[in-house]
Amino acid sequence: MSCFQVRTDLALEARESIKESEDGIRGVRVEETYDEKNEIRVTKVIIETKNGAKAMGKPMGKYVTLEAPGMVEQEEDYHQEISSELARQLKDIIPDIQKEQSILIVGLGNRDVTADALGPNVADNLFITRHVVKEYGKAAYNKSQMHMVSSIVPGVMAKTGMESAEIIKGVVEQTKPDVVIVIDALAARSTKRLNRTVQITNTGIHPGSGVGNHRDALTKESLKVPVIAIGVPTVVDAATIVNDALADKAPANLTELNNMYVTSKDVDYQVKQISHIICDAINEALEL
Amino acid sequence: MSCFQVRTDLALEARESIKESEDGIRGVRVEETYDEKNEIRVTKVIIETKNGAKAMGKPMGKYVTLEAPGMVEQEEDYHQEISSELARQLKDIIPDIQKEQSILIVGLGNRDVTADALGPNVADNLFITRHVVKEYGKAAYNKSQMHMVSSIVPGVMAKTGMESAEIIKGVVEQTKPDVVIVIDALAARSTKRLNRTVQITNTGIHPGSGVGNHRDALTKESLKVPVIAIGVPTVVDAATIVNDALADKAPANLTELNNMYVTSKDVDYQVKQISHIICDAINEALEL
Amino acid sequence: MSCFQVRTDLALEARESIKESEDGIRGVRVEETYDEKNEIRVTKVIIETKNGAKAMGKPMGKYVTLEAPGMVEQEEDYHQEISSELARQLKDIIPDIQKEQSILIVGLGNRDVTADALGPNVADNLFITRHVVKEYGKAAYNKSQMHMVSSIVPGVMAKTGMESAEIIKGVVEQTKPDVVIVIDALAARSTKRLNRTVQITNTGIHPGSGVGNHRDALTKESLKVPVIAIGVPTVVDAATIVNDALADKAPANLTELNNMYVTSKDVDYQVKQISHIICDAINEALEL
Amino acid sequence: MSCFQVRTDLALEARESIKESEDGIRGVRVEETYDEKNEIRVTKVIIETKNGAKAMGKPMGKYVTLEAPGMVEQEEDYHQEISSELARQLKDIIPDIQKEQSILIVGLGNRDVTADALGPNVADNLFITRHVVKEYGKAAYNKSQMHMVSSIVPGVMAKTGMESAEIIKGVVEQTKPDVVIVIDALAARSTKRLNRTVQITNTGIHPGSGVGNHRDALTKESLKVPVIAIGVPTVVDAATIVNDALADKAPANLTELNNMYVTSKDVDYQVKQISHIICDAINEALEL
Repeated sequence: MSCFQVRTDLALEARESIKESEDGIRGVRVEETYDEKNEIRVTKVIIETKNGAKAMGKPMGKYVTLEAPGMVEQEEDYHQEISSELARQLKDIIPDIQKEQSILIVGLGNRDVTADALGPNVADNLFITRHVVKEYGKAAYNKSQMHMVSSIVPGVMAKTGMESAEIIKGVVEQTKPDVVIVIDALAARSTKRLNRTVQITNTGIHPGSGVGNHRDALTKESLKVPVIAIGVPTVVDAATIVNDALADKAPANLTELNNMYVTSKDVDYQVKQISHIICDAINEALEL
Repeated sequence: MSCFQVRTDLALEARESIKESEDGIRGVRVEETYDEKNEIRVTKVIIETKNGAKAMGKPMGKYVTLEAPGMVEQEEDYHQEISSELARQLKDIIPDIQKEQSILIVGLGNRDVTADALGPNVADNLFITRHVVKEYGKAAYNKSQMHMVSSIVPGVMAKTGMESAEIIKGVVEQTKPDVVIVIDALAARSTKRLNRTVQITNTGIHPGSGVGNHRDALTKESLKVPVIAIGVPTVVDAATIVNDALADKAPANLTELNNMYVTSKDVDYQVKQISHIICDAINEALEL
Repeated sequence: MSCFQVRTDLALEARESIKESEDGIRGVRVEETYDEKNEIRVTKVIIETKNGAKAMGKPMGKYVTLEAPGMVEQEEDYHQEISSELARQLKDIIPDIQKEQSILIVGLGNRDVTADALGPNVADNLFITRHVVKEYGKAAYNKSQMHMVSSIVPGVMAKTGMESAEIIKGVVEQTKPDVVIVIDALAARSTKRLNRTVQITNTGIHPGSGVGNHRDALTKESLKVPVIAIGVPTVVDAATIVNDALADKAPANLTELNNMYVTSKDVDYQVKQISHIICDAINEALEL
Repeated sequence: MSCFQVRTDLALEARESIKESEDGIRGVRVEETYDEKNEIRVTKVIIETKNGAKAMGKPMGKYVTLEAPGMVEQEEDYHQEISSELARQLKDIIPDIQKEQSILIVGLGNRDVTADALGPNVADNLFITRHVVKEYGKAAYNKSQMHMVSSIVPGVMAKTGMESAEIIKGVVEQTKPDVVIVIDALAARSTKRLNRTVQITNTGIHPGSGVGNHRDALTKESLKVPVIAIGVPTVVDAATIVNDALADKAPANLTELNNMYVTSKDVDYQVKQISHIICDAINEALEL
């Protein structure tokens, strides 16, 4: 596996691909819980040291993965369970969420490309309050406490001529949110996680990953406020699939597979569905 | 006209509704040319003094209106003539357009509301160069001179929780364009101008007009760079229509018409068509 | 009313525009109920005789109108009440609905034109069972009784080159449904009914009405099976509005208003919402 | 090839996968031409005998494949060359195309699923004449000769509850076209042909192939008129890719890849582009 760089945005998969000693990887802590009734598995990977970060190829921080096979099934009751669990995990990872805050939600990705439209889809349906609270106060909602929620879909560089990071920085400096939540489609290593896995991390977003090429650093360092990233793997690189199938046999010529990805036949439907679940989860998590 | 505020974003209509002395309105100069072959009428209204601005209810500056009855017809050759004329007028009004510049184009409006989607539609199809020039230089286009063109669709306040002006200001401060071009759908007073009139002005955009409620000031004062606005009337307020039909008869009760507008039965098709024409015009105007 | 033909597809409005004697119109029976809690008004206009049909300008049959001001509001619980009431009215008007049947649902209109997209929107989200029951039997749904539900969106003549009626007749002869349900956007006379009124009739669809020009006769005579039509007014002719405002004053020149309609500023959102309500109502009504 | 059924809708690929004797396959004739300037390769596979059909696993008839690597590039002039070549091949294969005819064009597939939306996309933009010729005669177009062109998008079984073939049969019996042209997205075996290959055949469409599950027989036998099929491979089965890469090594466990496909990262853009080319080609071929 040494020379072929496996491309995965999931800390869970990064960890699986590392040969472990009996005691796990030093500096990386893993906790797992399983909700049998709802078939929801939550795995927390906490990278605690620089060595752990190096071993994992990911920055230090928390990575929470929620897996639920039925995430794309049509039963609405079940989606409710998943989005509520997701809301709990979000509340756990967003700093000081019980205090009133100004929260900017960023929907990364290209709304015209199915597998990359997760971010825009979620942003389109959020419960947005900042403009109302600013104009009429919390009274408009009959609430004593209220976050000010705003959102933006920056678009992709091929269409804007700007890096998403430039746009986000400008908006952050102008509107001064206390925390930024970024949503994006991810690339996974294994098809079995496509569209049924959500990763939440407090490390923000780092260049060179994601479905499109729209990923510049969006981190606490670059934006000066905490950045929570929510991601869902919607594609696998075609070359990765073939390479994994070949295992230790001599690799085939895979150049033909450049710019190809593997995705579910139902990707259009599934991305809509999961966008809905994440949107519900954010709305629930941001209610005071 | 005194008590019933006629709502129009067109300087041309504002002028028509003023009773003129023999010599026209003081401080307002009007020039008109007509291209008979292509049936394109270009009217320039130049407001030169504060008194003229007061009489017109519009800020001092240039307002160029291009009217072409066939703007929505299906003949592509004809569209070419219109967009070329539009390109000439744009080149005339953008300061120092013959020199290399960084130009940010803003598509105002709501992409999910037909009559308000003009700005987003235009922005989606522009020839964007900033990211390529920044990364690879002008050589990437085999050109010795090249504008750096970028664009953004800020979205509407109900969805973002932010004023468009906040987003644009942030992006302008971050990316420092030399000029901003803003595209938006307008409200007209008369149905005969719907979807066949384009207004270009160097006064930017002023609050309280437009189809949606997404119009904060976007002017040289607020953004610190020249702001060119391109607008197309896509709707008429229903109350305006009835009031105009009634003329000097006693007005009927028009409250029922609040939140109603009059638009063409073909508005969906026509907005797409005219977006295409404006997009072509901008691309042509910004070629060096 | 004599010389200016008021254009309305609503039997309710046709009746309102007729000067009545003390005893109502002969041959036309009207029943009205009002659900105060949910603010739902149901009006049944039953045209019982040829004379009644002549007076009303509509064929003999039942016309049930459901009006609910909050049909376009954002509260989901309330929508549930409306769609359940609609389901009850549908069950009341579809012949033999308690017996297993094959039911074809037709979504008329143009999916690319906002105000005309009601039919296609509803059809896109129905619970379709015919292919499953035919292939696997009712067992696939764990049911002892099950309608076979199919649906089609024929498209508009400008795009198909065929009348909707030709397509529907072909499909009916091929698949032999027991009843046809047709959904279409209507034109109303008054803006106060736009997007908050649903009309159900057992007289099918008659030429020369509706938002688009896609309305050929779809009736028991032409299709040989009962035809239930569900319609929602989404636009008013602009000329009608002005004419109504003018009342008995001399009419203005309204030619400018040809091909113009009046609609709500929120028409895009409202049509989606009401499509959802009708879709839920049909799914509920067709459950055995 | 014996035990693992390679799934391809392309006759070209079926032929490549057969080990040939020196003289080719009996009963299968192949002609190839290459336009160097425009890089367009046209391959005709003519299956002339039952034995040839058996060897190929495809019915007797003509299969014309047009390959052009730049089909998805952004240069419009080049697209013009491709669609003109396609038009020539279409004119060659449609029986009696120089005589006035009634032609029904069917856009198979699901408009909400990117890789399957080819048929609907093409149908949406055709030049439709049947309704005008029927109503106003050829004079409406200032032509002495004119085909009557109609089109339909039947939708997919999951949404209609009907087989496409049922709908098409009904429409054919009702409107009696002289020839039917069917457009559909295909599955290829090799990613190198995705979105840059068009196959035209006079054998119609046969069950069990295509991207979706919407392919019932649409042939001269079932519809009683000649059926021309136009197809473009937009996906490859993920299992096929892996199997091909493995070559003669023992196959890996591929169950994980069920319901997965491999497609281009630009599939959304490419399907739009190629729909445009095919639409232009049909419009050109059907002009008299």
